[in-house]
Amino acid sequence: MILTVTLNTALDITYKVAALTPHATHRVGEVVERPGGKGINVARVLAALGHESVVTGFAGGPTGAVLREMLAPLAPHDALVEVAGNTRRTVAVADDATGDTTQLNEPGPTVTPGEWTAFLSSYDSLLRDAEAVALCGSLPPGIHVGAYAELVRRARAAEVPVLLDTSGEPLRRGIAARPDLIKPNADELARLTGSREPLRATRDARRRGAHAVVASLGPEGLLAATPDGTWQAEPPEPVKGNPTGAGDSAVAGLLSGMVTGLSWPERLSRAVALSAATVLAPAAGQFDATAYEELLPRVTVVEHTTGMPAK
Amino acid sequence: MILTVTLNTALDITYKVAALTPHATHRVGEVVERPGGKGINVARVLAALGHESVVTGFAGGPTGAVLREMLAPLAPHDALVEVAGNTRRTVAVADDATGDTTQLNEPGPTVTPGEWTAFLSSYDSLLRDAEAVALCGSLPPGIHVGAYAELVRRARAAEVPVLLDTSGEPLRRGIAARPDLIKPNADELARLTGSREPLRATRDARRRGAHAVVASLGPEGLLAATPDGTWQAEPPEPVKGNPTGAGDSAVAGLLSGMVTGLSWPERLSRAVALSAATVLAPAAGQFDATAYEELLPRVTVVEHTTGMPAK
Repeated sequence: MILTVTLNTALDITYKVAALTPHATHRVGEVVERPGGKGINVARVLAALGHESVVTGFAGGPTGAVLREMLAPLAPHDALVEVAGNTRRTVAVADDATGDTTQLNEPGPTVTPGEWTAFLSSYDSLLRDAEAVALCGSLPPGIHVGAYAELVRRARAAEVPVLLDTSGEPLRRGIAARPDLIKPNADELARLTGSREPLRATRDARRRGAHAVVASLGPEGLLAATPDGTWQAEPPEPVKGNPTGAGDSAVAGLLSGMVTGLSWPERLSRAVALSAATVLAPAAGQFDATAYEELLPRVTVVEHTTGMPAK
Repeated sequence: MILTVTLNTALDITYKVAALTPHATHRVGEVVERPGGKGINVARVLAALGHESVVTGFAGGPTGAVLREMLAPLAPHDALVEVAGNTRRTVAVADDATGDTTQLNEPGPTVTPGEWTAFLSSYDSLLRDAEAVALCGSLPPGIHVGAYAELVRRARAAEVPVLLDTSGEPLRRGIAARPDLIKPNADELARLTGSREPLRATRDARRRGAHAVVASLGPEGLLAATPDGTWQAEPPEPVKGNPTGAGDSAVAGLLSGMVTGLSWPERLSRAVALSAATVLAPAAGQFDATAYEELLPRVTVVEHTTGMPAK
């Protein structure tokens, strides 16, 4: 199975309003709730691709109970660790006219040292059956900034390939523990390396400790710096739609390709096609299976053959 | 005991953010939750004044469970009727700098005909022990617009004095069933009567069927048109603070004065002092007991002696 870790799970709530006006009162037309957090999204896409997937991380309180109830009928197996605090909500307020959304993210429950210890023990035992593990998203209050570095080290000790998808200081510290793969977007990459030049920044991120770096560049697709070479993979044409979850689908594609033993160009094609098929799907965070099948053979992958630093 | 009815109860959530910017992502600094809905606020103030109070209406789903759990340690007795749907949330986004709030109100669960019948049966039996009843707030989806008229008629048949505090068409229909008292604010009164002239509109509202009308005019206090005369009651000085719940505190003051057998000027003084003490309290929807005691003897009540239409 493939394990995904979401330390700060969320109940994602979407409110449809006519238009958001600060300091006014709004009648919400429609309320949609779904289990959220990057690792949960990744696990759902993996399950849709036919992989056995297991989600862990933390859930607690009344919101955690709702999240787990909504997760129960879905394919990913729930191995979340119970916490005393209340799982966070995220509220996306979507304007009816434009579809533009305003996002309000609760901080999440404070995780106690005892709860973190319980998680580590569960994580170690889940690693025993894992073909790969993905560490996804932000850290909840109470979790030390080096937490992902610790989880990377434990995965490497268990000889389980580990993908890290986070940002800021947790990413910086996590890279130093030498994960197999990181998947920053252009902003995260710029914060990490100080460079907005994608090829330079991606290679620089690799030098900091990640064995491979796959940068997601939005409409320009993915740029991968790996021990086997450097590639850029692009969708055959620009896609229009809701980009929510597109990065998580790319992570799922990379993991899926990794455990299936695909070559880097094949992995990147899978990740780009899934990502584009997610943008095209009407519901946020899901992918359009027909569009995926149709896009997959048409993704272009170009190798950068010069200036590749030895590693 | 005094019964309050809240057909569309709510879990009131407050989010503190630096400043709300449409189409941006916000980290919520602080999350505060409290049981909400006008009738629940009224019952809490009544309990603080020493009255036995009972809340009824609907609650259901995970949000209803949270609301009832938060209500349990409070003084009002919970006689809410369980529904299958999920109780609504209201989200108040408060800007840190200015304190201005942006309100997002979910519609509430759709109440089925069977649930409405169960409520009516419970309501009739609660009326047997009630000294007075207050019908408060908006109607949830599924409840017919004449619902308050029906609840007014049942209270009158049971000889229980009934106060109606709602707006729009439910208010218009409810008034025709001849409630003992309505408490519109200036906007509600204008929508009902077409007049923005408070004295004329208040008397007009009375002619439509309410035995007494107490209009809440914000900083100008209360204007009452009653069978015993017409009075205006004002706080001794303007008060600054959070007006959330001030109207509900006025309703509690009017009910408290009614069941205690106070004269109209005494009832109005109590309602105005409670309302002002609610604006002054730091927490939304609570009143400052010391400020209330201090304000009560200083409220000015003036009788309008001319032009009072016979009824």
